[in-house]
Amino acid sequence: MSDVLNPFGESKIENYDHLFSEFGLKPIDSLLSRLPNPHRLFRRKIVIAHRDFDKLLDAYEKNEKFAIMSGIKPSSAFHLGSKMVAEEIIYFQKEFKAQTHYTIADLESLVDNKTSLETAEENAIDNVADLLALGLDYKKTFIYRQSQQQDVKNMAFKASNFVTNNMLKAIYGDQQTGLYFAALTQVGDIILPQLDKFGGKKIVVVPVGFDQDPHMRLTRDISKKMNLVPPGSTYHKFMRNLSGGAKMSKRDPLSMLTMNDLPEVAKKKIMRSFTGGRETVEEQKKLGGRPEICMIFELANFHFVEDDKALEEISATCKSGARTCGECKAQLAEIVCKTLTEHQLKKEKLVDKAKEIVGQTNL
Amino acid sequence: MSDVLNPFGESKIENYDHLFSEFGLKPIDSLLSRLPNPHRLFRRKIVIAHRDFDKLLDAYEKNEKFAIMSGIKPSSAFHLGSKMVAEEIIYFQKEFKAQTHYTIADLESLVDNKTSLETAEENAIDNVADLLALGLDYKKTFIYRQSQQQDVKNMAFKASNFVTNNMLKAIYGDQQTGLYFAALTQVGDIILPQLDKFGGKKIVVVPVGFDQDPHMRLTRDISKKMNLVPPGSTYHKFMRNLSGGAKMSKRDPLSMLTMNDLPEVAKKKIMRSFTGGRETVEEQKKLGGRPEICMIFELANFHFVEDDKALEEISATCKSGARTCGECKAQLAEIVCKTLTEHQLKKEKLVDKAKEIVGQTNL
Repeated sequence: MSDVLNPFGESKIENYDHLFSEFGLKPIDSLLSRLPNPHRLFRRKIVIAHRDFDKLLDAYEKNEKFAIMSGIKPSSAFHLGSKMVAEEIIYFQKEFKAQTHYTIADLESLVDNKTSLETAEENAIDNVADLLALGLDYKKTFIYRQSQQQDVKNMAFKASNFVTNNMLKAIYGDQQTGLYFAALTQVGDIILPQLDKFGGKKIVVVPVGFDQDPHMRLTRDISKKMNLVPPGSTYHKFMRNLSGGAKMSKRDPLSMLTMNDLPEVAKKKIMRSFTGGRETVEEQKKLGGRPEICMIFELANFHFVEDDKALEEISATCKSGARTCGECKAQLAEIVCKTLTEHQLKKEKLVDKAKEIVGQTNL
Repeated sequence: MSDVLNPFGESKIENYDHLFSEFGLKPIDSLLSRLPNPHRLFRRKIVIAHRDFDKLLDAYEKNEKFAIMSGIKPSSAFHLGSKMVAEEIIYFQKEFKAQTHYTIADLESLVDNKTSLETAEENAIDNVADLLALGLDYKKTFIYRQSQQQDVKNMAFKASNFVTNNMLKAIYGDQQTGLYFAALTQVGDIILPQLDKFGGKKIVVVPVGFDQDPHMRLTRDISKKMNLVPPGSTYHKFMRNLSGGAKMSKRDPLSMLTMNDLPEVAKKKIMRSFTGGRETVEEQKKLGGRPEICMIFELANFHFVEDDKALEEISATCKSGARTCGECKAQLAEIVCKTLTEHQLKKEKLVDKAKEIVGQTNL
């Protein structure tokens, strides 16, 4: 197959339809009408696929238990991919009053990125401050570091009794023992909301990027064997990197925007991003631009232009040739700078709270 | 090679000398004169080998830091093998005033024996009551369950960065991921006393049976890479099982004595044990018995006859033919029954304390 999903390396998706047939994911379209105040990421079909998300909607509509969980690997700054996940869980927390869990996967960054637990703690404080600035209600969220959560780690050992080395190899490829165990620890994270102390068995939905799907498949398999509810998931499209290729990834920091970027740095990155513009201004006026391949449009669509009509106008004026790439970039850069400045000011006031949350031990 | 050392299965030792050349262990004899009030297990050369035990003696003599650590897999009752380890650490605690650590390896029993953490906790309470009844000073010992100790588990992840799958396979054979990770968790247990919170780098000696040597080799290797002091170890001979073969093992409960055995059950087990007696009483009187292969003599030597002269007399009267197996068994059975009764009475009073110690969470 040409698509590769690997949470511990580079993932590559050439054809999203392929994922539906290959891994049994379902298109999310038919469920969208059941969402209260659908979030931008749903409205714009950036979240395009799911597994068992209908079960969460059922539970919500019947007033039954359900939970949302996700997390971050504290190996670097909060980038736009992390922001998508964050916005999804914040949406579920606000609109669904969902029980919310958020793991800081410091044991995974220890083995996958060789980030020490101490450095991971520093990164996590920064990441959690972003999360709070984006609007997560920490009072209603169980936020923890893997290194400080006994149950998650103990669950990893328990989960290991339900897998063979061949299964792990089939799902993750040939990896070091530590990485396999990091995967089992993620299983522990995803199972955690079903423990008695968190209200027992329930549907848990994990908003993820497609590259995390191996963890979902592993956890579903183990959950069944442990007589728990297999977790569901929603999948958003990858943010491409600013050069227009592959996925925006922490592994290639120069081609991505992070929530820590100085506004002037972000502006420079935007001004040199890949667009859907033509060779010459004349050609552009004649043929129009191509928003469907343009990173500026993707930034607007995924993140920075909240109003659907405003977005539609950008697309229409681009296609008609009325809009040049230069002015379009400048316009978006202004929005991004404003957004980052506001975010960073908000975040600054939340660092102490983040320190307190991340600093918690023995959760 | 004919000798097999495997902490996760059956070990077989045909020739102790072989272990010295094969694994670089050293005979302990030349160090014995440096021991204050040498314990029965040292006096009788039941503890026969070591690695870097001289470094602990150096530290002790120079008034430098050192620690003793050991532990138990809480998958069943305290048998005579566990008792040997316990007596050794109690000896070091009393005579050397050693900093003492004791791990209850419940994550190992979870993956190796599929013992649930709940059952392991019950077993551990029983095991720790035995330990206290044997004389361990709990006030001077850090006793913990792996499932309740963050550092040990976090250390396992860290340690995994310093091993390859090939190394693990070379040491433990082809095992499931969970067992490899249990081994890395044991590395965490052995490294723990060197953490800053326990006084920092130091020589740590682990009294073990030979079957645990793979853990020691792995930990020494990783300790060096982590810039810690490679731990030392002392090795005692295996208790054979009561039929005279192989090792007394939890995997074959009917052929072993445990500290929980009812005195009358222990008596029966002793009466049908393998001896070094001859075919007929006449032959026995003529040729004498063979204490060197006799399980009754091994029980007396390893565990139940404290006085060296009394033991020597048993051996001498056996060899001369003056002693018959029947009277010898009855004599030992009486001592064993008395010992077990006293132990169990003492233990009964310590169960509440054991419950309190084992019940501690988030250590």
